[in-house]
Amino acid sequence: MLNSLYQKDQKYLNLAINLARKSLINCSPNPRVGCVIVNNDVILATAITAPNGRPHSEIIAINKVANKSLLINATMYLTLEPCCLYDGKKSAGCVDEIIANKFARVVIANIDRNPNINGKSVEILQKSGIEVVIIESQVGKQLHQEFFKVQKTSLPYLTLKIASSLDGKIATKSFSSQWITNEQARKYSHLLRAQSDAILIGANTLRHDNPSLTCRINGLEQYSPKKIIVSNSLNFNDNYKIFDDPCNLIIITCESNQNNKFFKNFAGKVIFVKKNHILEQNIDLEWALKILAQEGINSVLVEGGSKIIAQLIKNNLIDKIIWAKSQIIIGNDGIPAIAELGITDIKNAINNFELQEIIRFDDNLIEILQKK
Amino acid sequence: MLNSLYQKDQKYLNLAINLARKSLINCSPNPRVGCVIVNNDVILATAITAPNGRPHSEIIAINKVANKSLLINATMYLTLEPCCLYDGKKSAGCVDEIIANKFARVVIANIDRNPNINGKSVEILQKSGIEVVIIESQVGKQLHQEFFKVQKTSLPYLTLKIASSLDGKIATKSFSSQWITNEQARKYSHLLRAQSDAILIGANTLRHDNPSLTCRINGLEQYSPKKIIVSNSLNFNDNYKIFDDPCNLIIITCESNQNNKFFKNFAGKVIFVKKNHILEQNIDLEWALKILAQEGINSVLVEGGSKIIAQLIKNNLIDKIIWAKSQIIIGNDGIPAIAELGITDIKNAINNFELQEIIRFDDNLIEILQKK
Repeated sequence: MLNSLYQKDQKYLNLAINLARKSLINCSPNPRVGCVIVNNDVILATAITAPNGRPHSEIIAINKVANKSLLINATMYLTLEPCCLYDGKKSAGCVDEIIANKFARVVIANIDRNPNINGKSVEILQKSGIEVVIIESQVGKQLHQEFFKVQKTSLPYLTLKIASSLDGKIATKSFSSQWITNEQARKYSHLLRAQSDAILIGANTLRHDNPSLTCRINGLEQYSPKKIIVSNSLNFNDNYKIFDDPCNLIIITCESNQNNKFFKNFAGKVIFVKKNHILEQNIDLEWALKILAQEGINSVLVEGGSKIIAQLIKNNLIDKIIWAKSQIIIGNDGIPAIAELGITDIKNAINNFELQEIIRFDDNLIEILQKK
Repeated sequence: MLNSLYQKDQKYLNLAINLARKSLINCSPNPRVGCVIVNNDVILATAITAPNGRPHSEIIAINKVANKSLLINATMYLTLEPCCLYDGKKSAGCVDEIIANKFARVVIANIDRNPNINGKSVEILQKSGIEVVIIESQVGKQLHQEFFKVQKTSLPYLTLKIASSLDGKIATKSFSSQWITNEQARKYSHLLRAQSDAILIGANTLRHDNPSLTCRINGLEQYSPKKIIVSNSLNFNDNYKIFDDPCNLIIITCESNQNNKFFKNFAGKVIFVKKNHILEQNIDLEWALKILAQEGINSVLVEGGSKIIAQLIKNNLIDKIIWAKSQIIIGNDGIPAIAELGITDIKNAINNFELQEIIRFDDNLIEILQKK
């Protein structure tokens, strides 16, 4: 009997996890929480956090049930611990709604690592006589990994995306790169864009590739993320494709470019970096990423070039690598995915990542590595 | 009934194929043929070609059956068409033995592409009233791919073996490379050595890595292959590990080094390359490989360095790539697996290979690509 209840809990919690996983709604800076309400084995409502993070999924799901008496003794399945009232919070917590509607049980996949909550809501629910069950799983944790990263470190979750030849080159010496990987691998990388809050590139990539950085999958165009250009010297004009949609653009550049005429009619956002955040002629990316997290960006997809990637790897700022490799060979005069790292002894090679998953698309392989 | 006979034929032919596949006996220049003799669903004998190619597996298997009357109406399963007498052949053909012993059927996986045979033995058997069945399969063809390559092109079958970091580097800038891949991946590469007739390296790899090029798997040490060093300038001494076993060594170098004192006490083999086979300061590797095939070498494992690999790739001489990649990152100041290829337009990138198989050993991936 107990075992059967556990299996049911797993089933409905997985439903909540999968609803949230498959959604592309951008809830940042809030996490994309999935909610399922069940009573007597009948699913009464499902919900995901609304765009921009409000209302929370708990409230949306409760509001979907017109006859509130059905909620009495119901179970709420949540991918994350619900919120509660704390100093500085603008609205009442979801726990109050759960208690008011006389739920019997709440099953959650993760404790909210926001230091203001961090188990407090579980306590409140339990004190109100509501049973709380926590079922942890790998997939449940991964669902909110971006949010947890920001909560823990004030840094966004960084995914490095590389599309290279078999020998690790992202273009020929003359920057010819269309296309290194096959159509399926490229579609996959467009889906990654839709799943990210922002894409980050360096100015060299802008100048050589002139990328759109949009999600070009039919029907998903509206999920194109914000675009971030990092450029010390601002050595580009606004003729690139990326400037067609300046409102979604963020430029990170040195304070010394503040009076550049480039910014006169620029509709996007600019983050000017003070001298003390320039290290060895490079913008301190850790500092810049913290600013981006403060702007509500939880997840960043890094798409090049090789120098900025090397800098991020050196500074241990990458959380995940998604490397698509095709079967073609370019040779060592091609452009590398990752620039010089200054490593002499093999024992000092970067060894922060472990292979998590492999996806094969015909002759192309996608390797997914996660920070250890 | 017919279907059931076909299934039995497949079963016993697969046994012959697997016997030959799993054997490490070096039969070159002959192919490693598997033979199974069956009568009334009883396996009477199995055999594989003897070391150095003689006797053939048909003769070994027939000789294993003391009571020859058991062979009357038996079926012989062979991975390759048996041989027959032809001009210049030293001994009688195996077909004569098959006919003399009154076999009813012969089931083979491949026609022998040796132009002297090429279906002739099948005809002889049929004329003697013996039924011949040919069952082709991918795995059956691959078994003799090295032998077929030599028969067709007079060139050995070349397998390129690379062990690299995630970003395609085989060592750090100071040639530190022990170890890039994990123990299982290295064991796998030692097995490749045991399966090859010879390993080929350039002089730079000799000088930087000082490799033994032996098969260091317990119990398989005796299957270590011949070692080939290609060196235009002969810029090394005989203090390297490889010279501990000079009898298995072949040096390919320019004719101008003929009087080098290095060769005074050298017990190995030397192939001196005439001026007309030096192309743009490089030894014409296609020519050199043909000489190696004439020496009875059917399969060559290429283990570096990056320049010789680039030359072989450019000249379309590689048949298979086995690329082991680990999860570590070295950066672009590391040593590349493949040197410059002079490619500018991505459309001209090397696209001769297709992904055949992936093997995962923990965080290491082995990609196997075959020439299209």
